[in-house]
This record gives sequence, structure tokens and C-alpha cells, in this order.
Amino acid sequence: MPERARHAALLIIGNEILSGRTQDVNLRVLARLLRERGIQIAEARTVRDEPEAIITAVNELRGRYAYLFTSGGIGPTHDDITTACIAKALGRSVIRHPDAEANLREYYLGIGREVSEARMRMAEVAEGAELITCAETAAPGFVIDNVFVFAGVPAIFAGMAQSAMARLAAGPKLQSRSITVLVGESEAADDLAHVQDNHAQLELGSYPTVRDDGKHICELVISGTDTEAVNQALQELTGLLDKRDIPWQS
Amino acid sequence: MPERARHAALLIIGNEILSGRTQDVNLRVLARLLRERGIQIAEARTVRDEPEAIITAVNELRGRYAYLFTSGGIGPTHDDITTACIAKALGRSVIRHPDAEANLREYYLGIGREVSEARMRMAEVAEGAELITCAETAAPGFVIDNVFVFAGVPAIFAGMAQSAMARLAAGPKLQSRSITVLVGESEAADDLAHVQDNHAQLELGSYPTVRDDGKHICELVISGTDTEAVNQALQELTGLLDKRDIPWQS
Repeated sequence: MPERARHAALLIIGNEILSGRTQDVNLRVLARLLRERGIQIAEARTVRDEPEAIITAVNELRGRYAYLFTSGGIGPTHDDITTACIAKALGRSVIRHPDAEANLREYYLGIGREVSEARMRMAEVAEGAELITCAETAAPGFVIDNVFVFAGVPAIFAGMAQSAMARLAAGPKLQSRSITVLVGESEAADDLAHVQDNHAQLELGSYPTVRDDGKHICELVISGTDTEAVNQALQELTGLLDKRDIPWQS
Repeated sequence: MPERARHAALLIIGNEILSGRTQDVNLRVLARLLRERGIQIAEARTVRDEPEAIITAVNELRGRYAYLFTSGGIGPTHDDITTACIAKALGRSVIRHPDAEANLREYYLGIGREVSEARMRMAEVAEGAELITCAETAAPGFVIDNVFVFAGVPAIFAGMAQSAMARLAAGPKLQSRSITVLVGESEAADDLAHVQDNHAQLELGSYPTVRDDGKHICELVISGTDTEAVNQALQELTGLLDKRDIPWQS
């Protein structure tokens, strides 16, 4: 596990995720973008659209990890309370960002719609924030201190996350190699534990699945920032499997 | 929002979810089963396969909510540490449950495989637990106090969750009605806020999407345990939309 500076958290805000109405896909998108920069998500939380729940989670997570990302609750409706909660958690006031206001005005006038109060709520940020814009929408996300605030709609979340990546300090990238053993997970457990004992700095995982024909198989994954150590561990693992005639494929 | 006794939390344990390797689908399955019994998931967390992270989350969540469900980390490999962490969080020891041991022995002998130590780890539970079995596997989940411990593999998680439902006190079921407005979310924001103000005990949500033809539309959802209030609120909402000639469909 890398040091705290390489750890992030994701806070998903939305009753619709917790009710099972909507399937979250933003965790996966963010995790993959962050991995490219050598940053891991160490914790993810989903909370309801309620001020106390949001503020508590924001303060716990932004203190515990180098970066906190939030998803959802920055739209124009009454249940979009993320911006107010972030501001409260950080002890800032909510302001309308002039650039965001100008962009939204231009957008709505351009499509011949009214510049309503509800729409102008999307120009609100915590005081001191910088905007995170993306091609998908005129309504921005923002970053303040180590907290990145994005919309929840997947295409917009992905756009904002992509925009924000350049602001993060890149570190050594995590390398992964994997093989699939054509036996159940329990058959590989001892060999896997043995290799893990030899390589405390690597992460060894096993992911069992059942094939369509009913056969239990298992993917074994070795990850770490040291490519040579990853390759060495993989060689040890396949050596142990071969010694016991366990079938595997890469 | 219903009282605490109708609130549950889900703790997902697994590096593979946080790394973006695996898409979680268990939250959604559990949320839907619980809704049938009038129980809502109020918080979900995903943590890494690390004792401190798991134990802290278990203790926070089991204290805060009526039920805590966990997903993942009860298999046969070195990174399956959930049972040990649950036991530690609850101040119990880890024991091999005799029924679980018998079931696993029978299963592995039946398919002509060795009854290995790694496999027998799957018979371990926190002392005092009752088994949660399902048709999908011979390796059980378990429940102890208000903590339900399930496997992470989606088919097995779903089987264990289904088995466990009969143990939960059923309450008034949440009713939902929804319409889709054929305009962007911001166009409906004021009407939605107005109806929410009239019905504090209901939950009104808005879920914007972009249609394939590029048109912004939005689903408006009204939920609550009082069917009449839900219907009344829907009537108010469509009345307001009609007054402004906002197109909608049910």
C-alpha cells in the first residue's frame, strides 16, 4: 500500500444510488483515471442527500486522504445541496462564480431559454474555489483545497474527472499482471499466500468466477509499482502452480 | 426519511472494487430486496482488504444503523480477512462452525477433492453467529448481532441476501411514482421544490438524462410510505407542469 499522499477517496451523494434505482459507474471511471497517475482510491462512500451526512463524510474523508472527489448534487433542483454542504464543511461561504455565471448565461441565451434562478444556482461554488469545466456541460464542477466536486451524471462526471487529472501530482504508476487458473480459488490459496509472504510490498488478489459451463476458475492478479518485483512474483507463482500441475493460462 | 430502525448500511470489502477492476452490483441488489421489506440503505462504504479499515467501518456502521450488511472477503485465500475482522470488531473469537464444516466436507468429498485447510477456512465464523446458507455454494455467510456477512461474488451475494430477508422485521413498504418531463432538469426545478415544501414526509427526486437524439429530459420520482400522499403530490406536480405547458409523460 502506497503512502497516504497517493490515496484518494470518493464520496457519492445521492438517494438514487442507495435506493437501487441507479447503478453507480463513476467509481470505476475515477479509479481508472487515478491509477494512470499512480493514485489509488482507498475508500468510497455513498450517502443520502442530507446535509449532516454529507458534511460529516466530507470532513472525515478530506482529512484522511490526499484527495477527496465528490459525485452528484450540484444541479439546479432543491435536492442539489452538495455545494452548500462543501462550503459549510470547509467554513466558507457560497458565492456565484462570475465565470460560471457568464458561461451559463451565454449557454441559455444561446439556446433561447430563460436565465432562471434555478439555473443560476449551478454557478454557485464555495468561496475560493476554481472551476472544473468540461465539454459536456456549461455548468461547472469545482475544486477547493483537496476537494474536487463533480456532477453525478456519468458522462459529465467522466468529463470533469478527465479535466481535473492535470491538477494532480503524478506518481509511480501501478503495474498489474494476471493469470487465470482453471481451478477453484481454494486450490490456489496456499501458493498465493506463499508468494504474498515473499513480497509484502506487492498486492496479490484472487477473483473467482464460475464459467458458463459451470466450471469454477479464478483470476490471480499481482500489482505493485516495482515492475521487476511484479514479474518476479508472477514467475514464483506460476512455478508453484506448475509443480502441482495446476492448469493456468495468461 | 423513516426512523433509524428502518435504516441499513452496506460495507463492501475489496481492493478490486476500489481499483476499478470490478464493477460493484451488490448494492443495487440488496437495496431492492430491502425496499420490499420497507428498509432503506442509508449509507454504503467500500474499503480495502485491510484490518484497520474494515474494523473501523464495521463498528461505525453497526452502531449507526439497524442493520449492517457486508460483501466480500469470506473466501479461502490470504486476503479473505472479513471474518477475523468482524470477530475482532465485536469482541468475539473466530470458531469453525460445525454445520459449516460438515457441509463443506460433504461438498468437497462429493466432488472428489481434498478437504484442505484453505477450504476449511470457509467454515469460520465469529463465535455466536448463525449461518446464512444459499443454494449457490456450500460455503456459508453468517449473521451475528445486527451484522450480516455475505460473500462478494454477485450470484452468491444475491443468494445469501435473499435467504437473510426472512430474518428482518418487515415495515411499511416504500411506494414510488414517477413521470418523465421532456425538458431539462432546471425547467422543472421550481415546481418540484414547491411540491416538496408541501410534503416534507415524501422524497422528491429528479434524474436528468440526455436522450440518444441529444434532447435533455428528466425523470421526476416521488416516494413515501403513504400511498395517498404520494398520489396527491404527483397530482399537484403534474398540475403545476400543465399550467406552464411543460410536456411530460408517465
